[in-house]
Amino acid sequence: MGTGQNTFGKGSSSASGFVSGTGSSSASGFVSGTGQPVVAILTRDGLDEPANLAQIREVAEVRVCTTNSLGPALSDGQGADVLLLWDFFSAALRDNWAQANTLRWVHVCAAGVDAMLFDELRSSDVIVTNAHGVFDGPIAEFVLGSIIAQDKQFHRSQRLQQQKRWERRDTIRTAGRSALVIGTGGIGRAVARLLRTVGLQVTGAGRTERTGDPDFGTVLATDDLSRYVGRFDNVITIAPLTEQTTGLISAEVLAAMKPTSHLINVGRGQLVNELALIEAMRTGAIAAASLDVFDTEPLPELSPLWDMENVHISAHMSGDVVGWRDELADRFLDNLRTYAQGEAPANQVDKALGYVRAG
Amino acid sequence: MGTGQNTFGKGSSSASGFVSGTGSSSASGFVSGTGQPVVAILTRDGLDEPANLAQIREVAEVRVCTTNSLGPALSDGQGADVLLLWDFFSAALRDNWAQANTLRWVHVCAAGVDAMLFDELRSSDVIVTNAHGVFDGPIAEFVLGSIIAQDKQFHRSQRLQQQKRWERRDTIRTAGRSALVIGTGGIGRAVARLLRTVGLQVTGAGRTERTGDPDFGTVLATDDLSRYVGRFDNVITIAPLTEQTTGLISAEVLAAMKPTSHLINVGRGQLVNELALIEAMRTGAIAAASLDVFDTEPLPELSPLWDMENVHISAHMSGDVVGWRDELADRFLDNLRTYAQGEAPANQVDKALGYVRAG
Repeated sequence: MGTGQNTFGKGSSSASGFVSGTGSSSASGFVSGTGQPVVAILTRDGLDEPANLAQIREVAEVRVCTTNSLGPALSDGQGADVLLLWDFFSAALRDNWAQANTLRWVHVCAAGVDAMLFDELRSSDVIVTNAHGVFDGPIAEFVLGSIIAQDKQFHRSQRLQQQKRWERRDTIRTAGRSALVIGTGGIGRAVARLLRTVGLQVTGAGRTERTGDPDFGTVLATDDLSRYVGRFDNVITIAPLTEQTTGLISAEVLAAMKPTSHLINVGRGQLVNELALIEAMRTGAIAAASLDVFDTEPLPELSPLWDMENVHISAHMSGDVVGWRDELADRFLDNLRTYAQGEAPANQVDKALGYVRAG
Repeated sequence: MGTGQNTFGKGSSSASGFVSGTGSSSASGFVSGTGQPVVAILTRDGLDEPANLAQIREVAEVRVCTTNSLGPALSDGQGADVLLLWDFFSAALRDNWAQANTLRWVHVCAAGVDAMLFDELRSSDVIVTNAHGVFDGPIAEFVLGSIIAQDKQFHRSQRLQQQKRWERRDTIRTAGRSALVIGTGGIGRAVARLLRTVGLQVTGAGRTERTGDPDFGTVLATDDLSRYVGRFDNVITIAPLTEQTTGLISAEVLAAMKPTSHLINVGRGQLVNELALIEAMRTGAIAAASLDVFDTEPLPELSPLWDMENVHISAHMSGDVVGWRDELADRFLDNLRTYAQGEAPANQVDKALGYVRAG
């Protein structure tokens, strides 16, 4: 472990962050007087602190802060070089950017980093990493469950139960049905694999068309979505939210979908034109929507979505399995240890793209 | 195709039905004057007739009847040698047994034959066949969906939606959880395979303990159920209903289950002591029950099960996917063609056991 400066950070003009070779002297060393990283942990009232905080303190000097105290936490003394966005939807870094002079690395405890990215951060050399991988399996299960629940009419059975009505109905065989997974990152891939495992016919959609993908087989281009979306029984949106994907499920795309189709959004609310979706549900342009994410969260009480029988609402929780926060904290600790050894933290977000590039 | 008598049928004293070798003259031929089987099809008001009825008529002389006309349909003219229980829960054969003198084969369009078996039929040489295989895949999906729906709290999300309440909760990772599948027939095996595919830890329970089962790995003996049932997160009952399995999920077994466990009954209502289950749900002895079958069907309006939030009721439909009746009719037609060639129909129920023996 060397004593020089890392080549990345807010003030650095170098385009790339780390040099991955272990022999490079530019890939190690810290400004901290103790030789330890200085980590600001942004939390908020009501949020438990990371369960492994004591272990984090063994590796780093730690400053736990909330939005109001983020500025000093970043700039006091020799300044923080690491920021852990434990409150992962916070946009507070943007407001305190002027005080982030020593910042080199921000770790976001979420898969999507859309809420925290901003232009100055993008054009800086500060590295952004995310919780790549943590949510893959849980969200894949959630999607599979949503599909079977709709196919087997579980929601309708629950309403009939509330009315004490016995109505035998024919339901749908899920195996053999088709699914379009929009988003070919880690979560999309896990969804594709799980759906294939139980016999669904899966196709992917991403920025570029290709064949022979190990998880999807065929990946179609999202540019053309309305041309082919009508072929699919289930349409799953799990793309990162970027300028390109905002409003991807437009009125036009919804109109092109099968009237019997089921939209499942476990990505971000803004991937879907919510007003167009409300209209599509009203007119029966599509049959059902399972929505875990919304334009505004919590979903406002006045939203017509609440009252729609074929809309199935959950509270942005598709990836939140018991122990998920501990898993997030453990992943950060692993990454921090890597960083403390002068190596590049894993799961770096391509800030121009807005997500981790597939390995 | 020979012209002699088959060696099976009500009046035959031979213990076995068909001889499977094609060279045997005893395995072919019919009493029908036209050389065709005479098939009585028992239906009921409100039930569509088999979609392939015209094709059945090409192979056989057909008499479509209801409960009231079953007797003459069986006995008129030279009498029917085949009975198709298209109305598959009917017990009408028992009441018309005296007129079934020429009957050789009853095909039941269901997986479970418990509703139609009776002692005189059991001790006769009349062959009983069932819809073995038709429901395997659909019911396996239904079970998997029930497990994920409970793990991800879909039912609770629906109730919260009705109240326009946004409540983010941590849910359960389904992969890695355990499941005990009680019943090692075709459906139980399909359930086991599908659950394993998505990462559940599956164990079987059947009449005899064994290891190295291709679908279950370990099969435990149902005799000992209360000794080991407490090890499982999910308990699935899909055993055939027999004297031995009636009330298998007893008060004692329920008391031995994990307080966090989930009971899924897709077999027969009588596999579970329903009163004991109601009590177990009231006291929180188990966490949830997904019930597709009941002691009395339709479930009476007075049943306390309707009002229980952790009981998920469906109307005996777990295997009923779109096209299932056509599939049942096609399976019978295949079997009838086999029979018309003097060969043994497939999927013969062991009438002493009450189900098709695993091949």
